Amino acid sequence: MLRLALLLLVAAPQAEASPNVVIIYADDLGYGDLGCYGNPTIRTPHLDRLAAEGMKFTQFYSAAPVCTPSRTALLTGRYAVRSGMCHDRRRVLFPSSTGGLPAGDVTLAEALKAKGYATACVGKWHLGHLPAYLPTKHGFDSYLGIPYSNDMDGIRGQADSRNPRPGAWNCPLIRNEEVVERPAEQRTLTRRYTDEAVKFIREKRDKPFFLYLAHTMPHVPLFVSDAFAGKSARGLYGDVVEELDWSVGQVVQAIRDAGVEKRTLVVFSSDNGPWLIFNEQGGSAGLLREGKGSTWEGGMRVPGIAWWPGKVPAGVTTSELASTMDLFVTCIKLAGGDVPSDRPIDGLDISPVLFGKGPSPRDTFFYYRDTTVYAVRKGWFKAHFTTRSAYGRDEPVKHDPPLLYHLGRDPGEQRDVAKDNPAVVEELRKLLVDHEAAVKPGENQIERTQPPDKK
Amino acid sequence: MLRLALLLLVAAPQAEASPNVVIIYADDLGYGDLGCYGNPTIRTPHLDRLAAEGMKFTQFYSAAPVCTPSRTALLTGRYAVRSGMCHDRRRVLFPSSTGGLPAGDVTLAEALKAKGYATACVGKWHLGHLPAYLPTKHGFDSYLGIPYSNDMDGIRGQADSRNPRPGAWNCPLIRNEEVVERPAEQRTLTRRYTDEAVKFIREKRDKPFFLYLAHTMPHVPLFVSDAFAGKSARGLYGDVVEELDWSVGQVVQAIRDAGVEKRTLVVFSSDNGPWLIFNEQGGSAGLLREGKGSTWEGGMRVPGIAWWPGKVPAGVTTSELASTMDLFVTCIKLAGGDVPSDRPIDGLDISPVLFGKGPSPRDTFFYYRDTTVYAVRKGWFKAHFTTRSAYGRDEPVKHDPPLLYHLGRDPGEQRDVAKDNPAVVEELRKLLVDHEAAVKPGENQIERTQPPDKK
Repeated sequence: MLRLALLLLVAAPQAEASPNVVIIYADDLGYGDLGCYGNPTIRTPHLDRLAAEGMKFTQFYSAAPVCTPSRTALLTGRYAVRSGMCHDRRRVLFPSSTGGLPAGDVTLAEALKAKGYATACVGKWHLGHLPAYLPTKHGFDSYLGIPYSNDMDGIRGQADSRNPRPGAWNCPLIRNEEVVERPAEQRTLTRRYTDEAVKFIREKRDKPFFLYLAHTMPHVPLFVSDAFAGKSARGLYGDVVEELDWSVGQVVQAIRDAGVEKRTLVVFSSDNGPWLIFNEQGGSAGLLREGKGSTWEGGMRVPGIAWWPGKVPAGVTTSELASTMDLFVTCIKLAGGDVPSDRPIDGLDISPVLFGKGPSPRDTFFYYRDTTVYAVRKGWFKAHFTTRSAYGRDEPVKHDPPLLYHLGRDPGEQRDVAKDNPAVVEELRKLLVDHEAAVKPGENQIERTQPPDKK
Repeated sequence: MLRLALLLLVAAPQAEASPNVVIIYADDLGYGDLGCYGNPTIRTPHLDRLAAEGMKFTQFYSAAPVCTPSRTALLTGRYAVRSGMCHDRRRVLFPSSTGGLPAGDVTLAEALKAKGYATACVGKWHLGHLPAYLPTKHGFDSYLGIPYSNDMDGIRGQADSRNPRPGAWNCPLIRNEEVVERPAEQRTLTRRYTDEAVKFIREKRDKPFFLYLAHTMPHVPLFVSDAFAGKSARGLYGDVVEELDWSVGQVVQAIRDAGVEKRTLVVFSSDNGPWLIFNEQGGSAGLLREGKGSTWEGGMRVPGIAWWPGKVPAGVTTSELASTMDLFVTCIKLAGGDVPSDRPIDGLDISPVLFGKGPSPRDTFFYYRDTTVYAVRKGWFKAHFTTRSAYGRDEPVKHDPPLLYHLGRDPGEQRDVAKDNPAVVEELRKLLVDHEAAVKPGENQIERTQPPDKK
């Protein structure tokens, strides 16, 4: 007992200080793409170990099935519609866009910076590439990365996402607010992002820091460094994910080397599901239905791994509900900061889950496709009020009654049980109606484009 | 260094003695049904821990997609056709069967018993229920279990696999060679098997032992004890698998309590893929195609976890190829026993993989459906020469050229690449022709039935 008390005395000051926060965000990585999520041919020993030493979520959601709104929600703790960062036709920002994350939005970086955190954004941004919208204008002390997706800015006649050749995309690499390389040499992006992240951790070890490492990969066109090319049984996609896994290992090692592992929360996730239309060059959602672009589970349920030695219990798989938006609230509270009180926040404090103290405060989730809620989940039930193919040109199909699935018993969304559960249907319908009535969409940022692109 | 040497001196005698062997075999559990294989709603903390402390195989095969031949191959190290334990129409043994595993076959139990092992079979047998064929006639000192599948012997008008009621199947519970309960109370089978296994481990701790724990579950009709009923988000199927997971935890704890964990190899696997036609009461093959009954991957690739603290490296996921048949050879060699030399053996010694010393000796696998090889795998390539629905009444469809899949890049068998790989196709064709020419089918056991059932 005395020994335990002494341990607590020694451990407490370090553990209770404002923790470092590292969010590693993959691009288009599917629920089924990691070894610890059942992938049979992509080797991810570092992520598997992160999960074994930490917590693996099986019900972890990105708040949008495509890039721009997903990242908006992650960094603001709110569904992207509130920021105007989604659009029914364009869906995400493009090089011709003139909009971006509004200056009035409060990002996780800003909230943590206010508490004295050093902040860095490394990787893909995709929340506005004009100077007014770059990470350094949204609370990050520094930035190194590409401003939008790596398949944008393709050079006519050269760019073919299915047959990626270096130099065929004119996507820039930006440091802070300057273009430092164009076209970005995409084969070395994962490695250079990693080096940047490791350097940041090493340099900021003595103060609390927030690192947002948003990898460009495995979004097509797939690029990989020579060290990983041709090494995976899963082909180029596997090579790319295995290099990401290596990167995670480097970041974790840097945290250990800096001696800050007892006060660093690492969260790994993905911005949306796998881009299935690319077949072998897209990932897998495992037994979940559909992928990127879709409000079926495969589009929005993503890997979610949390690691913090001594705080997050080791080797736990949880089916508690959580969303990337919850990281906003949770991390601000951990830092002793202020969650904005002048606006609605959709994220919730999931500390009870993270620290093994109790259930998730989240029991409801709204599946936005662009500006519209297509589906609603409460507990294990999910109602699809609208469905549409992930990337087809079909029109939305409305369902009344909605399609209803029990995601516990039927994780693959195969058996509509609406007619057996009329009360559940009505409860979910009311949640949808109330949510729609309450949400005030922000001024749309994605429809703002340069004249030549205006259609 | 001195300390290390001392440790080796202490540890070596225990580690190098004939190891105990525990094979835990689930019934119809799919590749995607465990947390560590990506299942999102079935909680399997004990199996996840077994994998985290041991080795998880991603390319581990049962040698048949249905029960009787799968178990024959596991226990004899040979494709079941050599024992006559498969049949194109009946597929498995039924209560009306009069055949069974031939007396001349050498089982793993017999080979280990010859080296002084105590041997026990607990659970489902399905290699012949007449007295001449029971486990006690095939090398097991003791037996407690049901002789065939739990959905056989249904009582007319009562037995409905989709709506299981206790007592609706007249399946007997046998101890050694005596029926001790009929109908077997299936709700308590998992618990009673577990108690029997734990008792065996406790009693035999001082000599080497072989425990073959072949659970009746999660084969339909699904039964679960009160302690687990209604506890899983995955419904009844999840309840049943979670009780199996509890059972694994009990067995491992018994091994630890007996102090023999440093000289006990535990292998967990399943006899074939999930029985998909039962929908929510069947399991999942994850991202693999199809399930039980089929020669697509979902029918025969199964979870495979090996655990032996200090010998099997911890936390390793391997994509080396292995089969249940390999356990026969590997375990006999570990015991210092004799692999039969008077007959062809299809199993290989996978010690190099198990102990992290090198690649698998297996690079080829033949996918038998009943008496016929439908598909052949070598390395990552698999050719389907014949396909057929898992449980339909359709006729076999022959493919020439065969359908060819790269299981590394395309684990879901979606993209036929035969026309791009003519040399691979010819290599696999030659393997098939040579194998078929070399294999001599045993006298068929499954077509032997009582007159009333002869059709």
